[in-house]
Amino acid sequence: MKKKLSLLIFSGEYDKALAGLILANSAKELDMDVSMFFAFWGLLLLRDPTKNISEDKSTLEKLMGVMAPKGAEELPLSNMNFSGMGKKMLEAMMEKDDTPTLSNFLEGARKKGVKFYGCKLSMNVMGFKKEELIPELEIIEATDYLKDALESDIQLFI
Amino acid sequence: MKKKLSLLIFSGEYDKALAGLILANSAKELDMDVSMFFAFWGLLLLRDPTKNISEDKSTLEKLMGVMAPKGAEELPLSNMNFSGMGKKMLEAMMEKDDTPTLSNFLEGARKKGVKFYGCKLSMNVMGFKKEELIPELEIIEATDYLKDALESDIQLFI
Amino acid sequence: MKKKLSLLIFSGEYDKALAGLILANSAKELDMDVSMFFAFWGLLLLRDPTKNISEDKSTLEKLMGVMAPKGAEELPLSNMNFSGMGKKMLEAMMEKDDTPTLSNFLEGARKKGVKFYGCKLSMNVMGFKKEELIPELEIIEATDYLKDALESDIQLFI
Repeated sequence: MKKKLSLLIFSGEYDKALAGLILANSAKELDMDVSMFFAFWGLLLLRDPTKNISEDKSTLEKLMGVMAPKGAEELPLSNMNFSGMGKKMLEAMMEKDDTPTLSNFLEGARKKGVKFYGCKLSMNVMGFKKEELIPELEIIEATDYLKDALESDIQLFI
Repeated sequence: MKKKLSLLIFSGEYDKALAGLILANSAKELDMDVSMFFAFWGLLLLRDPTKNISEDKSTLEKLMGVMAPKGAEELPLSNMNFSGMGKKMLEAMMEKDDTPTLSNFLEGARKKGVKFYGCKLSMNVMGFKKEELIPELEIIEATDYLKDALESDIQLFI
Repeated sequence: MKKKLSLLIFSGEYDKALAGLILANSAKELDMDVSMFFAFWGLLLLRDPTKNISEDKSTLEKLMGVMAPKGAEELPLSNMNFSGMGKKMLEAMMEKDDTPTLSNFLEGARKKGVKFYGCKLSMNVMGFKKEELIPELEIIEATDYLKDALESDIQLFI
């Protein structure tokens, strides 16, 4: 049976999402199964920047839709962000080394068959519609995450 | 034998505590055993807002007692807190969806028999007295946490 | 066979590094094997404050070398840092209880035979040279970390 990696992505920060996606891609290179469960701010990584639905949303949910980062490239750094300057610095340093961007790693994970799950409660609270996020995202409950994590060999909360 | 979830709650933030307690409650719904080990800022979640002992404390410990959040509802957000406005927003969004509050989830975990452990070293450093925190909290050392985590099927650091 | 603890240290914060190193030292007391894999900001903990190489570095990498904390004692707190005041407070509170400092715990972990691994991609992006960090650090890839984590009984992302 294949080994399995289970990642709970809670944080909505560029560098933490990068860490998660590098682990996901690396695990796939080792022919492992990979599940990523996105909860709370983690869902921001999966927003489609071209889609922002406002119908059927409360005023607060619309506000959340506008204020929160729209997808991978808009996420701030968890550290030394300096109003975005630190992030620009990191991006320049990554480019110099030909390190793929966060979007590249996300695309890689999607192509390699990483399973993407979204937390139902978080979706409800933040008011995100399934259509605003990447299409393969499957919405599940926390109990489903736990069952999947129980079948995994490594579980990390990022 | 029952499956077991081990959570090390390090962070003292509303949304991360919420994630931890939702997982704890969900694991109990699956009839799993659950241990939560609270260290550093994580202890703030367990403060009883009505108790703030000042005797037998150094000046710094008293200051910590006054400045640090007093229990579940005073914890800030880890992200988009905006001096508390983001948290009010989140609370309003949770209320609209009839999502229980952090205090509700904490109460649920206590009723369902989640085991609450506090880190002895953190208690000493921060100057918290056992009487200032929830009564069922058992104070243990990091080695005890590790022994308990070794018996668990999922271990997360939150 | 010995039980094993695997820590992925992503954060570059004093309190989180302290949590990681206390766990590492405690696991060694229990005669466990311990691997610490330092990625991104986590590498800052391992900087030798007396070494800051500037040759063979881009302008941005030099800037990173100057701006980012130099080793254990310069790391900020993750919470209530208050421009360093919170950290001074924590240090004073630790001293009063005769709690070892972060540097002491780091030294302890090194003496007890904890394995130190650094993330190759992070080293490249941040521009750190092996000579600027603690000498026993072994540079490995994310896939190597995963293989090591698969052999561990507890895996945490800090």
